[in-house]
Amino acid sequence: MPDRPVRIGLVGLGTIGSGVVRLLQEHQERIDERLGFPLRLARIADIDLERDRSLSLDAYALTRDWHELVADPEIELIIELIGGSDVARSVVLAALESGKSVVTANKALLAHHGQEIYACAEAHGSDIAFEASVGGTIPVLRALREGLCADRIQAVHGIVNGTCNFILSEMEQRGDSYAACLRRAQDLGLAEADPSFDVNGMDSAHKLSILIGLAFGIGVLPEAIPTEGIEHVAPLDIEYADRIGFRIKLLAIAKERDGGVEAWVNPTMIPGESVLGRVDGSMNAVEVRGCMSGPTLYYGAGAGPLPTASAVVADLMELARGCQRGVKHRVPPLGIPQLRDLPLRRKEDLEGEYYLRFTALDRPGVLSRIAGALGGRGISIASVLQLERHASEAVPVVMMTHLAKEAALRAALAETARLGDVTAPTQVIPVEREL
Amino acid sequence: MPDRPVRIGLVGLGTIGSGVVRLLQEHQERIDERLGFPLRLARIADIDLERDRSLSLDAYALTRDWHELVADPEIELIIELIGGSDVARSVVLAALESGKSVVTANKALLAHHGQEIYACAEAHGSDIAFEASVGGTIPVLRALREGLCADRIQAVHGIVNGTCNFILSEMEQRGDSYAACLRRAQDLGLAEADPSFDVNGMDSAHKLSILIGLAFGIGVLPEAIPTEGIEHVAPLDIEYADRIGFRIKLLAIAKERDGGVEAWVNPTMIPGESVLGRVDGSMNAVEVRGCMSGPTLYYGAGAGPLPTASAVVADLMELARGCQRGVKHRVPPLGIPQLRDLPLRRKEDLEGEYYLRFTALDRPGVLSRIAGALGGRGISIASVLQLERHASEAVPVVMMTHLAKEAALRAALAETARLGDVTAPTQVIPVEREL
Repeated sequence: MPDRPVRIGLVGLGTIGSGVVRLLQEHQERIDERLGFPLRLARIADIDLERDRSLSLDAYALTRDWHELVADPEIELIIELIGGSDVARSVVLAALESGKSVVTANKALLAHHGQEIYACAEAHGSDIAFEASVGGTIPVLRALREGLCADRIQAVHGIVNGTCNFILSEMEQRGDSYAACLRRAQDLGLAEADPSFDVNGMDSAHKLSILIGLAFGIGVLPEAIPTEGIEHVAPLDIEYADRIGFRIKLLAIAKERDGGVEAWVNPTMIPGESVLGRVDGSMNAVEVRGCMSGPTLYYGAGAGPLPTASAVVADLMELARGCQRGVKHRVPPLGIPQLRDLPLRRKEDLEGEYYLRFTALDRPGVLSRIAGALGGRGISIASVLQLERHASEAVPVVMMTHLAKEAALRAALAETARLGDVTAPTQVIPVEREL
Repeated sequence: MPDRPVRIGLVGLGTIGSGVVRLLQEHQERIDERLGFPLRLARIADIDLERDRSLSLDAYALTRDWHELVADPEIELIIELIGGSDVARSVVLAALESGKSVVTANKALLAHHGQEIYACAEAHGSDIAFEASVGGTIPVLRALREGLCADRIQAVHGIVNGTCNFILSEMEQRGDSYAACLRRAQDLGLAEADPSFDVNGMDSAHKLSILIGLAFGIGVLPEAIPTEGIEHVAPLDIEYADRIGFRIKLLAIAKERDGGVEAWVNPTMIPGESVLGRVDGSMNAVEVRGCMSGPTLYYGAGAGPLPTASAVVADLMELARGCQRGVKHRVPPLGIPQLRDLPLRRKEDLEGEYYLRFTALDRPGVLSRIAGALGGRGISIASVLQLERHASEAVPVVMMTHLAKEAALRAALAETARLGDVTAPTQVIPVEREL
């Protein structure tokens, strides 16, 4: 076994970057032993070299300019951990163009510029690995790329945002409001001061865009994915879900169906007894349904410096083997040599079952008027969960529909909104029974 | 991309073998597209060439003699699916020695002869892949070998026998006896006519032996793993477990602790709300606990021709890439270049919490005599679940212990067995809370 070291340059010494440095320091011996050759962090670039990170950085050449790392012929691997899509894109493309292989955890970058980056890697014979970009420590991208490569994937259902899953779990366990549980998540460091990107579902849409690439071989921008966050989930919805044995989770879903891929991010009711239904707190999980393999599920920590660093270093080790053996591009980034020609289906054409919570004045005939609006659009009601009586006050009217077209549902809801009886926007939560 | 085909020889055309042929036939186009070159089944060897398998075999050269496949210089990959340890061992070693790479699903072979086979592969520059040997379709071996390779694994908890999990789930859901649920499993084709190997835990021990190799880098024979099956689990035990929010699962467990590895297969009480606790029916799941990654879990179908074939063909595709690129041994079979020197800890030194169900005559002082025998060996009782009163009849006395040494427990139980009060063997079920 040759013992020429493979040298690494790290761009971005934030939380995850520091975790990677710590992991490489503490586990150097074990990693070298596994690889059979030394893997060495050589240079680090960050705009802030002063901040105390409680790390010994003496062994590394530090710089504020990432170009130095890309220009260094001794460095074969670049880790990009600065986040965002602008500088990160330049770093990754420059590294790949110079023939270096790249590890990144940057979901926004891949969701927006994945196709350009994968093509660049192929054109320059370099590798790009990004396991940490979805599901943190969970090796689900590897499973899609290699473990399930013999199968045709039918559907992916993921809980891929730990902040949202924590908030929904807390709401369920404590019966508290969304706002109170968000504050608790912020106090615990599980949500940012500005939590929008997590709670509005965009983070999940970015990750779903990457999952769709691996599962179905198509490129989809996150903006093209119908996305709704958890801000409007009420304790009442969670209570109704519980009453019928369901739980509400923010799911990122993609399915190949009718010659296209349908995809969305939405709070979703799923059976409480399902494995996905038991994923609590800030944990993540992705269920993949294959034509032959059936459902498989991958569960673990979706974030955190050490879990994420563990995924980054596993990628590093894989690419370092390629460097050492002089063999790159063993498997294409998305597992297939070229993208498939498969359209994203339009949201209005999607079909599903729905939980509907109307807020209506408790007047004679209200139920019949709401049901009439739905029936008029061909939407049949599977059950009415409850109609509480509070005399003249607005009360919740909860219905579960049979299979209905999204377009028909929206038209029916526009109609009920015009009824004098309905006093607030109607809550719509899709239901996925087959989990 | 070169389009020289990589040719395969299949040894063993039983249920799984037929599934592999079907998969390769039905998905040939998609598989070739993913690989960028043709992957072709060329020859099949089986002792029975007459049986109708509802498969078109016209495209393949058939033989009763596997040696022909190994001797064929056109064949680069051999799939071994005959099962058992004798002929299978000869096939696999001969193939590896001739420089061919091998895919197998044979857990007994790897559990007993893994070290010899891995060494042979290394010596002859060939590859061996065996994802389907544990957890059927679930790519958990890949996860241990590559996805988690940056981490130090602390523990593995697996539900790796679908037959046992089905029987225990049925007992729980229907309240029926073990015997009745076994019969139902047999009627559904989920248990063999002679189910011993599944229900006595040996199948799980074989799989645990393979998992231990990948998780901890040591070779352990299945016979060295303390193993107990599910035959003695009673509806009463399941009922008591349920009463405290636990479920009973046949777990294969291995942990690195105190400079050694402790491992056992045993019906185990685990929290019903845990993800592993929600694995029902014939499904399998393996939870891996890593130093940095924390717990990750892998779930899916543990058996069945198509799920297993899907794992076999994924392995085939990985090794075919190696053949096509002329690069083998990218990663060693166990992920490490050589075995670690770590002993298997003796069963009597293990420590755990236990559920104990005594069957005792309902006489004055019986509880105190049992508790005295336990206390005398330093075993303290966390709770007494119930002591039913049935006047002079034998009744169940159920206790949960605090942390206790296995050796002390066995000594205490030997003592209680000598008490005139205890009229039947005591049921002992370990408890794992940290899941």
